[in-house]
Amino acid sequence: MHRYRSHTCAALRKSDVGQTVRISGWVHRVRDHGGLLFIDLRDHYGMTQIVVDPDSPAFKTAETVRGEWVIRIDGTVKARSDETVNKQMATGEIELYAQEIEVLSTAKELPLPVFGEPDYPEDIRLKYRFLDLRRETLHKNIVKRSQIISDMRLRMNSAGFAEYSTPILTASSPEGARDFLVPSRIHPGTFFALPQAPQQYKQLLMVAGFDRYFQIAPCFRDEDPRADRLPGEFYQLDVEMSFVTQEDVWDTMGPLMTGVFEQFAEGKPVTKDWPRIPYDVAIRKYGSDKPDLRNPIEMQAVTEHFAGSGFKVFAGMIERDPKVEVWAIPAKTGGSRAFCDRMNAWAQSTGQPGLGYIFWRKEDDGTTAGSGPLAKNIGEERTEALRTQLGLEAGDACFFVAGDPSKFYKFAGEARTKAGEDLNLVDRDRFELCWIIDFPFYEWSDEDKKVDFAHNPFSMPQGGLEALQTQDPLTIKAYQYDAVCNGFEIASGSIRNQSPELMVKAFELVGLSQTDVEERFGGMYRAFQYGAPPHGGCAFGIDRVVMLLLGAKNLREITLFPMNQQAQDLLMNAPAPAMPKQLAELSLRVIPPMKKD
Amino acid sequence: MHRYRSHTCAALRKSDVGQTVRISGWVHRVRDHGGLLFIDLRDHYGMTQIVVDPDSPAFKTAETVRGEWVIRIDGTVKARSDETVNKQMATGEIELYAQEIEVLSTAKELPLPVFGEPDYPEDIRLKYRFLDLRRETLHKNIVKRSQIISDMRLRMNSAGFAEYSTPILTASSPEGARDFLVPSRIHPGTFFALPQAPQQYKQLLMVAGFDRYFQIAPCFRDEDPRADRLPGEFYQLDVEMSFVTQEDVWDTMGPLMTGVFEQFAEGKPVTKDWPRIPYDVAIRKYGSDKPDLRNPIEMQAVTEHFAGSGFKVFAGMIERDPKVEVWAIPAKTGGSRAFCDRMNAWAQSTGQPGLGYIFWRKEDDGTTAGSGPLAKNIGEERTEALRTQLGLEAGDACFFVAGDPSKFYKFAGEARTKAGEDLNLVDRDRFELCWIIDFPFYEWSDEDKKVDFAHNPFSMPQGGLEALQTQDPLTIKAYQYDAVCNGFEIASGSIRNQSPELMVKAFELVGLSQTDVEERFGGMYRAFQYGAPPHGGCAFGIDRVVMLLLGAKNLREITLFPMNQQAQDLLMNAPAPAMPKQLAELSLRVIPPMKKD
Repeated sequence: MHRYRSHTCAALRKSDVGQTVRISGWVHRVRDHGGLLFIDLRDHYGMTQIVVDPDSPAFKTAETVRGEWVIRIDGTVKARSDETVNKQMATGEIELYAQEIEVLSTAKELPLPVFGEPDYPEDIRLKYRFLDLRRETLHKNIVKRSQIISDMRLRMNSAGFAEYSTPILTASSPEGARDFLVPSRIHPGTFFALPQAPQQYKQLLMVAGFDRYFQIAPCFRDEDPRADRLPGEFYQLDVEMSFVTQEDVWDTMGPLMTGVFEQFAEGKPVTKDWPRIPYDVAIRKYGSDKPDLRNPIEMQAVTEHFAGSGFKVFAGMIERDPKVEVWAIPAKTGGSRAFCDRMNAWAQSTGQPGLGYIFWRKEDDGTTAGSGPLAKNIGEERTEALRTQLGLEAGDACFFVAGDPSKFYKFAGEARTKAGEDLNLVDRDRFELCWIIDFPFYEWSDEDKKVDFAHNPFSMPQGGLEALQTQDPLTIKAYQYDAVCNGFEIASGSIRNQSPELMVKAFELVGLSQTDVEERFGGMYRAFQYGAPPHGGCAFGIDRVVMLLLGAKNLREITLFPMNQQAQDLLMNAPAPAMPKQLAELSLRVIPPMKKD
Repeated sequence: MHRYRSHTCAALRKSDVGQTVRISGWVHRVRDHGGLLFIDLRDHYGMTQIVVDPDSPAFKTAETVRGEWVIRIDGTVKARSDETVNKQMATGEIELYAQEIEVLSTAKELPLPVFGEPDYPEDIRLKYRFLDLRRETLHKNIVKRSQIISDMRLRMNSAGFAEYSTPILTASSPEGARDFLVPSRIHPGTFFALPQAPQQYKQLLMVAGFDRYFQIAPCFRDEDPRADRLPGEFYQLDVEMSFVTQEDVWDTMGPLMTGVFEQFAEGKPVTKDWPRIPYDVAIRKYGSDKPDLRNPIEMQAVTEHFAGSGFKVFAGMIERDPKVEVWAIPAKTGGSRAFCDRMNAWAQSTGQPGLGYIFWRKEDDGTTAGSGPLAKNIGEERTEALRTQLGLEAGDACFFVAGDPSKFYKFAGEARTKAGEDLNLVDRDRFELCWIIDFPFYEWSDEDKKVDFAHNPFSMPQGGLEALQTQDPLTIKAYQYDAVCNGFEIASGSIRNQSPELMVKAFELVGLSQTDVEERFGGMYRAFQYGAPPHGGCAFGIDRVVMLLLGAKNLREITLFPMNQQAQDLLMNAPAPAMPKQLAELSLRVIPPMKKD
């Protein structure tokens, strides 16, 4: 017989009854039932119930074992009586009568219980991560995460992509977030950087004549800890293709990711044909470029119903400034004063002056009438026209926001979210996926008082060189797109600007010279001068996709060995001071920290 | 029609004749044949021959295109005449008559030719890696590398392993090679380290209740450049299993890797059932723990034939020191004075006093007789006894090395290699794989004048605690093994020491205290105290496996974006000085380099 096991703890079935078997695992818990000892034995695969009766030669050892000891058990498989069968357990039809127990490893008193998974402080969980990971939920999440990534790989391979690993010790990239630096010992005073993303390398791969690249790529950003981002490293499904338009990227990656979602959605519906929503439309309909399409509310412009109306606040704004619009947030089933007042109070709590509303109710005479101060001010006819345009009925409400849309759209989007969630209009048990497309290429930087890239500076501007030469930069769109699921951005991508001439012009508009481009992106800029194919791609955030699929709220629930929010690895005790010899070899000296602002 | 292509450059066949198609790619070369222009158009997938006749509307553009321009071509597929069919090309039965050519990207004068792949200085190749990678050989190698790794993953998944990514920003590990350090900005004066291998994490994973882990793991060592190792990063197929003996690791990974080799061996034979050769036996038979088993020569001890013989040099050594042995290196077909003298001269060139030999030839009377000074000295009878023991015949030779085997085995192994290769006894067209097992746990460090770990300090010593307490440390073996292919170590592994008590004792014997163990390997040492399963695994060097399968001599032939031998990325210009702001944020100052010894 094998030294440690003939079966895993998940393997034994009724058909094994009568067999002598060997299993090994962790003692999940021990119960004493009137002299009989019951041990739940756990391994990676599952759990088996062990019975040790006082006549067994194993009884003496069994009395000593404690939770989380590792033991080997030889025993005979017996069927459970009908009333003790456990249908929740794969092995619930049998139990194993122990004849011999060998203790393979004992355990000291546990700083963190495994059985029952009680809540525990995070620093303990991270310091004793090897115990934390034994807990059922975390163990299951990590296994699932591995399966999701493996499934992505299979689908990428099936779609004709090959995985190429790009360097992790590379050059600092001056755009974007802060780099982690790695001092070079051989060239004192110089540094490598860990890649924020393999962006330049994947584009170079296309220029090098490869096609259909992907990589489950580790990425590194030295950013201050945030709730929704682990310090240090994260993974993305990085994709790039040659000789493609953006439609090719969408047609390839949409169905592929639908497949991944369906595989792990446990029956929840997943969008098959992803809507392609222009950025401008998304802002107007949802007040966000990351709309949660599970929320059925779509906003509409209703400016004309308020122009010249008796609601002087809106009418006056509209008259004074042609940029002013009024947006309606229709809220089906929200038609009660109580709900509308709650929304109004919420708006005020976020710093807004308030949130105008109308709600409709059935009158005694059977007609539907709008209520609330706003309805009174604009009168019955306009109220009815609004109701008709928005398709609302008695029992529904509508909220109104007025002003310059570029200033209020975010708030309007939040109101849409709030109304949809509070009214339970959002179907939580589904995955709604879409592409947001036609992002602006440039944006106005209030901080720097100049035009800046809105997203990826390497994207191709729509309209090409002509647009850059003739259009107002702020009206230029890029071949740039995001993928969004349930209100979260899960991917970002673009068709790249592969023309050196266009690249120089695009950077010129944000105030950077050709020399700047050569200095900062020399590898890529040089490459584009030697025959660069049209190319494009995207990168999916793996952590976010896994969180969505597992319904996890915290990145540490889906990450094997995460750092804490202070960017420390409590298990391995990192970061830590270096030895003087190490610093000397690197020609570095630690100096007192900069004063914080 | 698609914006860039209806077909790839590898797709068109005779069955497509008559169709109007669109393809895009790089201009591999242009030839002018009596007015007709021939363009070889290349993409990731293959090559298509384009014909542009002077009447075509595309002719004017075609005349301008140069090597490595990227163009789109619309044209009609025509069958080639029988005499121009090219059977070497997948598309060799057709050619494409161009009607329209669009230049997608031009190319400046090439610093490195793609067509024909002429030899070029390495710094140019690395600086213009995007051109270098377009060359057929390198392109093919990189594609194959990706396929090999993908195949490993599939086989690991099929064998019930799951891939888990372990952290890249982690703690410095004081054993082994030099770490790359990453300064922490948030905790000034402290550093992360890049992992030399995920050794501790994979063991922690087992303690955390997982089983059958693998990872295509990036590893980092800040070592001085060596011919057989790229500076910086490398990849290993990292494997760990719970509740296993070393036989389980061999039985799992041997057949699996045979499968990988067979998949890419292009028909060359691959060892199916890997021999398991104890370290001591490997040293005696092959003079190496990395034997090339394609070489059929096996050495034998022949001490007794020289003891008390007329060859006084050997006889005297044997008499004076019981440790002295004489090893024979039988060399089939090496039976000529010329060859034996060449071997002797080679031995002297490596600093040895010489290499004694006997060679056998057929006498005129039909008998077989030994020749050479050594045969004369020991006489006919002993010469014949040697010949019989070694199974040699007329036309064969044998070389002899005498002394303390621990001092001469390496030289004997080199002589075995030299004889096998020079006599063409080595069948180069096969992959001979084996496990070398039972490595010594400790070795004597001449430098430190103390016992030290021979290999992995985390391995389980054979005989357990008792062996550590009672045996001479230098006689203790470990459950430690290597995989070897054609004379190269391709993997290393062991059953781990998962007992905290045993771990402390094992380190004690090399002079380290329990406190040292806690300080250096705190995460793992702590983990072993809370229920640690027996576990073991191995790690295959992916670069080496790929090199063997592709017959590559240089790591840069199988690596996408390698650094040069001075540990610089010439393409991206790394490492480079940091900006003062970056250093200030990290609380670091660059100081003048240490004096070199």
